[in-house]
Amino acid sequence: MALIGIGNLGSSIARAVRSRGLVGSVVAADQSAEARSRAAELGLADGFVENPADAVQGADIVVICTPIGTYGAIAETIAPHLKPGAVLTDIGSVKQAVVAAVRPHVPAGVHFIPGHPIAGTEKSGPDAGSGALFEGRYWILTPLDGGDPAPVARLAALWSACGAIVEELPADYHDKVLAVTSHLPHLIAYTIVGTAFDLEGQEQRDVIRFSAGGFRDFTRIAGSNPIMWRDIFLNNREAVLEMLQRFSEDLSYLQRAIRWGEGDKLEELFTKTREIRRGVVEANQAQPFPYGGNGQ
Amino acid sequence: MALIGIGNLGSSIARAVRSRGLVGSVVAADQSAEARSRAAELGLADGFVENPADAVQGADIVVICTPIGTYGAIAETIAPHLKPGAVLTDIGSVKQAVVAAVRPHVPAGVHFIPGHPIAGTEKSGPDAGSGALFEGRYWILTPLDGGDPAPVARLAALWSACGAIVEELPADYHDKVLAVTSHLPHLIAYTIVGTAFDLEGQEQRDVIRFSAGGFRDFTRIAGSNPIMWRDIFLNNREAVLEMLQRFSEDLSYLQRAIRWGEGDKLEELFTKTREIRRGVVEANQAQPFPYGGNGQ
Repeated sequence: MALIGIGNLGSSIARAVRSRGLVGSVVAADQSAEARSRAAELGLADGFVENPADAVQGADIVVICTPIGTYGAIAETIAPHLKPGAVLTDIGSVKQAVVAAVRPHVPAGVHFIPGHPIAGTEKSGPDAGSGALFEGRYWILTPLDGGDPAPVARLAALWSACGAIVEELPADYHDKVLAVTSHLPHLIAYTIVGTAFDLEGQEQRDVIRFSAGGFRDFTRIAGSNPIMWRDIFLNNREAVLEMLQRFSEDLSYLQRAIRWGEGDKLEELFTKTREIRRGVVEANQAQPFPYGGNGQ
Repeated sequence: MALIGIGNLGSSIARAVRSRGLVGSVVAADQSAEARSRAAELGLADGFVENPADAVQGADIVVICTPIGTYGAIAETIAPHLKPGAVLTDIGSVKQAVVAAVRPHVPAGVHFIPGHPIAGTEKSGPDAGSGALFEGRYWILTPLDGGDPAPVARLAALWSACGAIVEELPADYHDKVLAVTSHLPHLIAYTIVGTAFDLEGQEQRDVIRFSAGGFRDFTRIAGSNPIMWRDIFLNNREAVLEMLQRFSEDLSYLQRAIRWGEGDKLEELFTKTREIRRGVVEANQAQPFPYGGNGQ
């Protein structure tokens, strides 16, 4: 296995597959000498290289684990070195843009199968990973039309063996659903934490002191990797803007209800949203992650 | 001690003071026969009554633990029965409106000291409480101008003995800070969960299935007591609308940056918000609550 990027997700995959003996050996590529050296100290892979092209030589499976803005250049770099019959996959939170960036470079005979584990934490770097990260979590694959189903089944079996629940979805539908479940929540969390940042002096300090009232949960989400999230928003623009528009309309409706003291409208919505919470609890997606992070 | 309301907060106070032997006896009033009977099964108080006036007879400390929309009527009902020298306090998330609703009814010789523990969970009812709820959490008191400082010190000592960090703040400043740290986050969480609720069929089911990507945290907040939160928004209208206006402006700025592909603006904000997260972690407000809930 070759891992391109050994941050939170890459190091979690390394830990998950190595602790379970699922692959023969792992080579990790990372452009950061600090990340490579720390990952080596942690014993996360059998070899470490700077250039992704050096990592993929002879690999049966290549997993791109970097912010999605880097995918196109990485695909171009590694393409000539990919082994015929290899599986190329990724962990990006957006899938249509990833297909557009990577597919043109994929040589015939290499199986490109885009993927996205709904798991992660707000922390970055090789120390942040966990081999238990994927247990009980969904891992979505968005195979290309007309691809060979056999390597998709092999990849699904690998991530299942890491504890994940693997599902196949069309890339455009994935992007639409994730805009609601992940991208919009992150955008809103970033916004409200930014709004609080602009308060001055004592007021900002007291917002931090009294953050346990709900704000605290938003700061955790808004502590996520800035480059990763910049790339997600730039690469799922249409779906995010569409959901943001709906959200803004709904927020204006509530704003008006507060201004005019329309308690019945507030109560009606707040009662309805409890149903969704019940659905999340019943779907077994409510329990905290074993290591205490939020999914991404 | 008399507790008016034996839901999540009332039952937590009962558990906290009784397990520590901080009061001689506790009488709880609740209009719900079901809540009284469940609280009796749990052994949460020494006596249970329906009418708050019956609970406060002879009580040295009276704590109102109901949604704040009920405070005015409760204060009017209990006023003639309050013992001279008694302390009357509450747990409401808004303080100016509480003072306006309660103070006119408070008889001379009774010490009215508004309070607000920054602690709670999204669950309701006597089963949801915990005697450890207040450990390491802030408990804000907003004493009235010109009041006697001695009973304020006694009340602060009581909540400190329950593990809380007691702070005094002016009521208007409390309401402004809580609008940012609690009320706006809840409003936004309710909105986004409502937006998702309006999706149809399979899409709504998939939003629930894949909720671990961030949305999950919002559903927990949006699973909170609808009446309690309706009353909070109606009673902290100005501060909430002011912060909501700032939030909307900031969100529009990000929306525009996404639409025009201005990655530098996104990255700049996402980097800035990490500082606030670091502040929350450093203030020891980032760790999960012992029983897994969110503060309110």
